Amino acid sequence: MKLLAAVLLAGTAITASAQTMSAASREAAFDSQISSAEQMAWLKTMSAGPNHVASPHNQANAALIEKLFREWGWQVKRADYQVLYPTPVSTALELVGPVRKALGGQEPGIPQDATSNALAGALPPYVAYQGDGDVTGSVVYVNYGLPGDYEALARRGISVKGKIVIARYGGGWRGLKPKLAQEQGAIGCLIYSDPQQDGYGSADTYPNGGGRPPAGVQRGSVMDMPTYPGDPLTPGIGATKDAQRLTRETAPTVLKIPTLPISYADATEILSRLKGATVPADWRGGLPFHYRFGGSDDVQVHLKVQSEWSLKTISNVIATLPGSTKRDEWVVRGNHYDGWVFGASDPLSGEVALLSEAKALGALWKSGWRPKRSIVYASWDAEEPGLLGSTEWVEDNLAELKAKAIIYINSDSNGRGTLEVDGSQQFQPFVARIADAVQDPATGASVAARGRAKLRARAFDGQRADAEALAAAEKGADQPLGPLGSGSDYTAFIHHAGIPSLNVGFGGEGESAGSYHSIYDSYDHFTRWDDPGLAYGVALSKVIGRMVIGLADADVPPVRFTPLATAARQYLGEIRTLVENRRKEDTTRAALSADLYRLGSDPRDPLGPPVAKPATPAIDLAALDAAITRLEAAARAFDEKMAAKGATLTAAQQAALNARLKGIDQALLSPAGLPFRPWFRNILYAPGRFTGYGAKTLPGVREAIEERRFDDAVRETGIAAKALTDYADRLTAATAVLP
Amino acid sequence: MKLLAAVLLAGTAITASAQTMSAASREAAFDSQISSAEQMAWLKTMSAGPNHVASPHNQANAALIEKLFREWGWQVKRADYQVLYPTPVSTALELVGPVRKALGGQEPGIPQDATSNALAGALPPYVAYQGDGDVTGSVVYVNYGLPGDYEALARRGISVKGKIVIARYGGGWRGLKPKLAQEQGAIGCLIYSDPQQDGYGSADTYPNGGGRPPAGVQRGSVMDMPTYPGDPLTPGIGATKDAQRLTRETAPTVLKIPTLPISYADATEILSRLKGATVPADWRGGLPFHYRFGGSDDVQVHLKVQSEWSLKTISNVIATLPGSTKRDEWVVRGNHYDGWVFGASDPLSGEVALLSEAKALGALWKSGWRPKRSIVYASWDAEEPGLLGSTEWVEDNLAELKAKAIIYINSDSNGRGTLEVDGSQQFQPFVARIADAVQDPATGASVAARGRAKLRARAFDGQRADAEALAAAEKGADQPLGPLGSGSDYTAFIHHAGIPSLNVGFGGEGESAGSYHSIYDSYDHFTRWDDPGLAYGVALSKVIGRMVIGLADADVPPVRFTPLATAARQYLGEIRTLVENRRKEDTTRAALSADLYRLGSDPRDPLGPPVAKPATPAIDLAALDAAITRLEAAARAFDEKMAAKGATLTAAQQAALNARLKGIDQALLSPAGLPFRPWFRNILYAPGRFTGYGAKTLPGVREAIEERRFDDAVRETGIAAKALTDYADRLTAATAVLP
Repeated sequence: MKLLAAVLLAGTAITASAQTMSAASREAAFDSQISSAEQMAWLKTMSAGPNHVASPHNQANAALIEKLFREWGWQVKRADYQVLYPTPVSTALELVGPVRKALGGQEPGIPQDATSNALAGALPPYVAYQGDGDVTGSVVYVNYGLPGDYEALARRGISVKGKIVIARYGGGWRGLKPKLAQEQGAIGCLIYSDPQQDGYGSADTYPNGGGRPPAGVQRGSVMDMPTYPGDPLTPGIGATKDAQRLTRETAPTVLKIPTLPISYADATEILSRLKGATVPADWRGGLPFHYRFGGSDDVQVHLKVQSEWSLKTISNVIATLPGSTKRDEWVVRGNHYDGWVFGASDPLSGEVALLSEAKALGALWKSGWRPKRSIVYASWDAEEPGLLGSTEWVEDNLAELKAKAIIYINSDSNGRGTLEVDGSQQFQPFVARIADAVQDPATGASVAARGRAKLRARAFDGQRADAEALAAAEKGADQPLGPLGSGSDYTAFIHHAGIPSLNVGFGGEGESAGSYHSIYDSYDHFTRWDDPGLAYGVALSKVIGRMVIGLADADVPPVRFTPLATAARQYLGEIRTLVENRRKEDTTRAALSADLYRLGSDPRDPLGPPVAKPATPAIDLAALDAAITRLEAAARAFDEKMAAKGATLTAAQQAALNARLKGIDQALLSPAGLPFRPWFRNILYAPGRFTGYGAKTLPGVREAIEERRFDDAVRETGIAAKALTDYADRLTAATAVLP
Repeated sequence: MKLLAAVLLAGTAITASAQTMSAASREAAFDSQISSAEQMAWLKTMSAGPNHVASPHNQANAALIEKLFREWGWQVKRADYQVLYPTPVSTALELVGPVRKALGGQEPGIPQDATSNALAGALPPYVAYQGDGDVTGSVVYVNYGLPGDYEALARRGISVKGKIVIARYGGGWRGLKPKLAQEQGAIGCLIYSDPQQDGYGSADTYPNGGGRPPAGVQRGSVMDMPTYPGDPLTPGIGATKDAQRLTRETAPTVLKIPTLPISYADATEILSRLKGATVPADWRGGLPFHYRFGGSDDVQVHLKVQSEWSLKTISNVIATLPGSTKRDEWVVRGNHYDGWVFGASDPLSGEVALLSEAKALGALWKSGWRPKRSIVYASWDAEEPGLLGSTEWVEDNLAELKAKAIIYINSDSNGRGTLEVDGSQQFQPFVARIADAVQDPATGASVAARGRAKLRARAFDGQRADAEALAAAEKGADQPLGPLGSGSDYTAFIHHAGIPSLNVGFGGEGESAGSYHSIYDSYDHFTRWDDPGLAYGVALSKVIGRMVIGLADADVPPVRFTPLATAARQYLGEIRTLVENRRKEDTTRAALSADLYRLGSDPRDPLGPPVAKPATPAIDLAALDAAITRLEAAARAFDEKMAAKGATLTAAQQAALNARLKGIDQALLSPAGLPFRPWFRNILYAPGRFTGYGAKTLPGVREAIEERRFDDAVRETGIAAKALTDYADRLTAATAVLP
């Protein structure tokens, strides 16, 4: 605490009045308050003890955050909820055949990593919201454990029914692995970190590098978040004390089979003993043996996972600087503060950047600055187990947020590398101007220039690059914003409440993948391998600070809609390609007989024909096409008029425009929500049902086609077309107030 | 020898006169003589001891082959040559820093593998024709050690000058690795077998599977065969006793730096200690640590390789059944019999199929069959060190072969799987009819049907398939024959002498990659993991037997030229695509500044811009296009006339056609040969200068463009155009004799 106290006294007060400054001077004044030393000190303090939900150190962190905000002049309140949050009682794993060997348990400390040797009170490796159970069975390796993997198994006559699956991390979200395993009849699920992904395949292993060491384990949540995130007992409503609750047994997002994450050291003990046929080449990981499917009785494991399932209190820290002229328009900014163990990278590297912003905004406030709109800074609790803090707060304040929040800006783990911003595309030019203005700490170039250079350099060297992003980089144009899926606290804002959102962070050059959700996600790891000196923490504060100030002070929201229409057009094009490819594939598949596979596969390793599937019909997308055309026209009209007249609007015109643009993204919400998951209501983006984190765009239509629910595809096309038409019409109405 | 004697007595004589039989009955009579038990016995005997060049067991094998052929009624003679053939005196390797550890030496025996425990007289791991030397230096990992790898190193400021490189096997031919290393200034070269390629990445390791065990080493030749194969001292002439010879020092195909192949157990001792930057993702192999470039002084190895360089005698066994009516037209068929150690798969799995054919052909002969053309069966010595036996024989008999050989049919290692035939495309329909007629042992379908099914099944499952082969499979059309590069004894025939050639073998489902050129390439390995029961050895005999009988007895050669013209058209199309892609790439590269890479690469792992290269101009390919058009027309005219009238030719017309087709492929030879390597003279195919084994088609033109020798590209286009025009005109002249 000594170091912290020292740096908290640092920082020079802003003496000029920040209210009468130019915007550029205000940004410079803001920047002058951002201190990497301060971020280092907060990071060290907040990651000094286990800070998972309801832990003493997590509560101390909340208190520290609250105290700091108050000192900086913010109005602070807590938003507490009572949620179902399991903590592990048993996480026992034993290899019982062909030899007995105890596996699992807490990760070992490393001399070079201070906190790894202070594990009192730390959670052992486990996954939250698995289904308790005590099972013994033979083991089948299922690759990533995603739908295509079970098709591959079926074609080899391999069933997981009554067996324990072992899946490697990657390929899709963690929680899908046990969910699909239980649907396939498995009795238990192990998930391991293959070293190809985040061990020696990516970096030297910690402490020699940032890569995951052999005994490192990735904790996490396996709650069925693609159905709905947040407290499993209170879908759609805030988990207040008196909320009406489901029981754990009836909560659909709590899984049914015992599940445990394990290290690759432990996985080796199991996988290297498996017999059966050779796995396909793309199922092989980085362990030094030949991967086989297993499934025979000679390899048996005993898995016993039990949790304590009582309700726990979680506490969001909500801080406000009230707006002067538009108090009921909110710029909401958040990052979570709960971790799995010490959480230096995830989430504290983002949270300390948020604290720097808050301190600087407080300093501006103290020097007289009064933002037009209200600024709401949220430090979320309980993101790790399933976005609980943010989700319950959004659900609890849904109507008010829909009415008042003009944007939600999120960050989470941050590290060395390039700026990545995903989210609502009407903010693309606004984001691009900020990326042009902020310097990359490593090169001194703008973060935009660095991002473009990286895309072009990587693409020339044959590395995958998003085609639109690369094309923009080659033209020197603004980088497109990718669609938001899930995996952090923007989820409830954009997907449930229809509030435009941005997710902002630097990354791509650090080695935090190797410490992710393990005891090694520590101050020592982070400051050595991920963002030494927190240079990129400072850059993140500067980027988001500019966003917040710009949005809070703008006379009218800094939006342009052509990028949004362009994105919608692109998504529709992808769906057309999907349909075309599916139809071709269906024709080819229908021509592949069992006999062709009898002849075409190795008789010692026979492979059946592809699983039969209903043929994809032609899908009539004309209504959606027309709606997007309408949106394109409306966007062009708005953007052109704003380019010509935006700077000369009268106060009355500004007020009228503000009013008509307010809540325009509500038009994107489907009243009924998406099929199987009404909580998700945005027709333009969602996390995929079978990707978990990864975004699906025009998800109602796309997933219906992907999953061959062709009636749904027709219905969802209509819903999406209506939503985009409404959006276009609201935009046209807004344009009408312009001179 | 007991088992061998027993099965040699087996086999029933053919009692009917094979001369008056129908072709189908003759093939059935041939098949009746093929015995898998016999092949097993020969394999066991011939792989019972080390059978490398000049070893006692190799000489015994030659004597056995000669004896068998004589017993079967063939005329046999030896064709002996005196060649430069180095045998290892020292293959010492030691890690000297940061710790001392002796590496290298002979591979260890395995209890389950009988011959691996009888290594007296066996060669230790080494590579033939490396340059003797005694060097100590630091080590740089160079991936495959091919040109692109050195560009990647240069972009990171890493030089191998004065250092020892360690390259993994794969990516291109073994011999290119030390050759390029010495050109880059390296003082030594280690080549190791990464387990990703042929160890646990491909199969369980021997003896649990066929995969390469940790201590397994791939021997081989590193002679500069893309320049010329065969005896380094006698390029272009037979290495007879009195031939005029180069000295070893002036022989351009003998390398200059000491080179040693090592196991992945030994490679681990070196690679796991290397420091320096992280290698690119596609440089990573399957060893369980993070791959780094190395190059710093802390890791040092001492390498001392010395050979005994005296001339040795090699001995081809040449057996003939003289033709009855066309004695001066030869059907030549060969397989080598020398191995690196026991050589069960390579080469004996092919040689025992050749022996079965010879026995069956002898039985037909004894029953009265007299083929129209002469049949020449060659068992080559000294293929392993550099195709010496076949090359010297071709060079020694060049004029006679050019005048008489209508085809050369080669085999080498054979195993479970599908039939692969590559070579001169005028034989495509002939090969296809045989593939339709011979049964696949595993499924009972025709080998053609099985091959088509495999292509289609694999392609649907996303595995790479040759586009032309797949398209043919989907239409049920004949499989195209791929172009021949190098790697076996057809090389001198097709590339130097202009004799149409086929390379024939089954494969793709065995695990012989894991024993390749090691002591584990044994009877035990082969009969367990590669071709149990030699079912595919029998199939190979049946396929090639039909080829030999069909070619020897045909009234006119069973050729059709449209497939050849189609192949030429395809190759030209690929060259056009190459030029287009290069021009695009050149434009993009020219726009990539050093500054773009300063911004675009990770500052902790900086990467320079791509190596600057001369821009690719538009290349005028019109002459080649016109020549191929002429060839297409000539081929169509010939094929149509043969389809209409081929079955009704008079004896005089047949004789005239035979005469005009004889030696038509001589038209493909460039008088000057290919740039840098005049020994290679075929304008349509060659092994690549930088692939070693892999074929380059229209090589003079293609490699000139690839290597940016644009003046050469223009000249070679003219040479290729003239050759194909001549070919078309000879074909038109042949067509003219048809009614």
